[in-house]
Amino acid sequence: MTLTMALIVHKYGGTSMGSTERIRNVAKRVAKWARAGHQMVVVPSAMSGETNRLLGLAKELMPDPREPQSLRELDMIASTGEQVSVGLLALALQAEGLDAVSYTGWQVPVKTDSAYTKARITSIDDARIRADLQQGRVVIVTGFQGIDTLGHITTLGRGGSDTSAVAVAAAMKADECLIYTDVDGVYTTDPRVVPEARRMSTISFEEMLEMASLGSKVLQIRSVEFAGKYRVPLRVLSSFTPWDIELAEEARSGTLITFEEDEKMEQAVVSGIAFNRDEAKVTVLGVPDKPGVAYQILGAVADANIDVDVIIQNVSHDGRTDFSFTVPRNDYARVMDLLKGQVAPAMGATAVTGDPKICKVSIVGIGMKSHAGVAAKMFRTLSEESINIQMISTSEIKTSVVIDEKYMELAVRALHRAFELEAAAA
Amino acid sequence: MTLTMALIVHKYGGTSMGSTERIRNVAKRVAKWARAGHQMVVVPSAMSGETNRLLGLAKELMPDPREPQSLRELDMIASTGEQVSVGLLALALQAEGLDAVSYTGWQVPVKTDSAYTKARITSIDDARIRADLQQGRVVIVTGFQGIDTLGHITTLGRGGSDTSAVAVAAAMKADECLIYTDVDGVYTTDPRVVPEARRMSTISFEEMLEMASLGSKVLQIRSVEFAGKYRVPLRVLSSFTPWDIELAEEARSGTLITFEEDEKMEQAVVSGIAFNRDEAKVTVLGVPDKPGVAYQILGAVADANIDVDVIIQNVSHDGRTDFSFTVPRNDYARVMDLLKGQVAPAMGATAVTGDPKICKVSIVGIGMKSHAGVAAKMFRTLSEESINIQMISTSEIKTSVVIDEKYMELAVRALHRAFELEAAAA
Repeated sequence: MTLTMALIVHKYGGTSMGSTERIRNVAKRVAKWARAGHQMVVVPSAMSGETNRLLGLAKELMPDPREPQSLRELDMIASTGEQVSVGLLALALQAEGLDAVSYTGWQVPVKTDSAYTKARITSIDDARIRADLQQGRVVIVTGFQGIDTLGHITTLGRGGSDTSAVAVAAAMKADECLIYTDVDGVYTTDPRVVPEARRMSTISFEEMLEMASLGSKVLQIRSVEFAGKYRVPLRVLSSFTPWDIELAEEARSGTLITFEEDEKMEQAVVSGIAFNRDEAKVTVLGVPDKPGVAYQILGAVADANIDVDVIIQNVSHDGRTDFSFTVPRNDYARVMDLLKGQVAPAMGATAVTGDPKICKVSIVGIGMKSHAGVAAKMFRTLSEESINIQMISTSEIKTSVVIDEKYMELAVRALHRAFELEAAAA
Repeated sequence: MTLTMALIVHKYGGTSMGSTERIRNVAKRVAKWARAGHQMVVVPSAMSGETNRLLGLAKELMPDPREPQSLRELDMIASTGEQVSVGLLALALQAEGLDAVSYTGWQVPVKTDSAYTKARITSIDDARIRADLQQGRVVIVTGFQGIDTLGHITTLGRGGSDTSAVAVAAAMKADECLIYTDVDGVYTTDPRVVPEARRMSTISFEEMLEMASLGSKVLQIRSVEFAGKYRVPLRVLSSFTPWDIELAEEARSGTLITFEEDEKMEQAVVSGIAFNRDEAKVTVLGVPDKPGVAYQILGAVADANIDVDVIIQNVSHDGRTDFSFTVPRNDYARVMDLLKGQVAPAMGATAVTGDPKICKVSIVGIGMKSHAGVAAKMFRTLSEESINIQMISTSEIKTSVVIDEKYMELAVRALHRAFELEAAAA
């Protein structure tokens, strides 16, 4: 970012807002940017632990809220965490000598649909924020929340503050949205598994989308989708660097999520290795191979509000086939009950088997679009480590395999080495 | 209250809302009233300790906020305590099987002026609440807060939830507003000072106003003024009686603050003894007795934002007089500095003296309007106990004296006995 005076959105996570001492540091950092001449909008999360505390109180009164009227009250309660944060940050900025003002989602307003606890933003009116910026104010906006058409408070679900920040940046056509978090960027894979993992200085939006959805929990996936849709330049960087480092240095740090494919052309074919051990595999055996089978199985699963990820239907033998898919591991027992009890008998399947101890490992890279043989290299690498592949799923920019959970680290390390990610150009 | 189906407002204090267990009990009590056929609006305070916790965080970031922009942020922060309460109470009521919905001040809306941290309610739109009541819902409204004409969140100041409840009751023309608190009614005086003190079953609005302003901290004074202005029948009762006592018994308990003077005619001339040891006395000696003197002294005090209570100007001798008044004890040092440093020298007064160890004791009774000799009886009683009276102040329904703090208990007990308050008709 080289603009001398830009419109910048900062987003700070709950850990960065975890105490008044830390909030004071956030204020000093924001003040540094404001004093450099930038127009600043800040979206802070609730103080760490606060949302859990609030929802814990709610749970004591209603252990399993499901009705919309109850979910509405959860949003009424949970949205206060961010409201406290914006007020505290505004005070901290004022104490730094800056003019600052905070707004809740409904004050902006950030309009959403009425899907309480997991609402989606439909529009943001930026007039009020823009007027304050023109008055030289730093504007602080609550993350995680909005207001529906009937004037009820809604929340966007866990991690929703990332989405709020990106949505505000999109609405205001901000020059960059900086997500300050507890990691210093996006890595080629998890450094806890591969110590040689390397921070990428840039990653394409599509790659980031795959990395996020595959378990690199740096950014909420919805915020990445949003950034892609509205082409918001997004930077992930650490909130633990001292607030008083040079602004120019800070502005270059972390990982920039970019939309400029050209920049990536010369880079590595594979950008990163993602993995996820929160899934379980389910197979319905001996399914009659006729139209409507996938719907019969997955329709029932969807009706039980269970997300399905990888889906594989094998070729048929003697008019029967096997149908496999993965689900969140938390839902494994429920899916098995559902299939064994109702679905499989009704469709004449011969058996239902499953395995909760699997993991999914993926290679991600926008270069895969134009390079043949990438998947083959992945399979060869795993074969050389004697790792059996249970399922395969591919897309334009990623190849995923489902393997036994116990081989996860081995697979990730072998693939990271095979695709030379430690040495790849930044 | 004998109406078979009435519109009732319940207000619960922070102690009553202090844990999820207590909130569950509040829900059971409200449910009892709703199931008896009453239309219920409930105004709960923040959970006890929560407002202090929130303002404590704010204070760590800005120890002494004074600018409107900072007070605005305090309101943004502090208002969340009540927002959490209404959501939790709504969930608890729903868990009891009732249809319940919560609203913040801005959702109702409760409109106020823009005096952050001490806003005044200007209007309440009851359309939304009324529509919900007609749908059979219990409506829960945040206390303590509102929204100004520019859409900023405001709070009404400490104890403001009482005022919110009365204001909602007034706007909706409720049949009665029940203030559930940690005492079981209004007493003839503080039972900690006079064990024989008796709970009054009724008290007139004017008497309550004097009792409240004189230190009987049962109800916030502004809520009593509001109730008087809009003639809202107000009942103070205990939130610690079991929730499952008979509704008819509960509806008769506590103290009813009434506007029907007729009912009171046969009652005692003096209804109660109030006292207050939070004041200090200041005297400017040898003030030239000429027009503008009171303004010169009190104008300076008012400019320093210090409230003045009792004011006495003695008769003049040789063109000079003494001017005495009381101020909150917390402001005593500041007032003395102000007077000695600037005001007294400028007006040629001879000296400034003061005494922080005083107290004010008052007899209150609407019957005093039409009964002579009541004040004389007060003075005789104090004289018989050899208590010296330092200042006297009177109004239509009260007589106050300022005495040495150390005689406070003695004076209150003697007066309670002299006016036969232990034995007065209920």
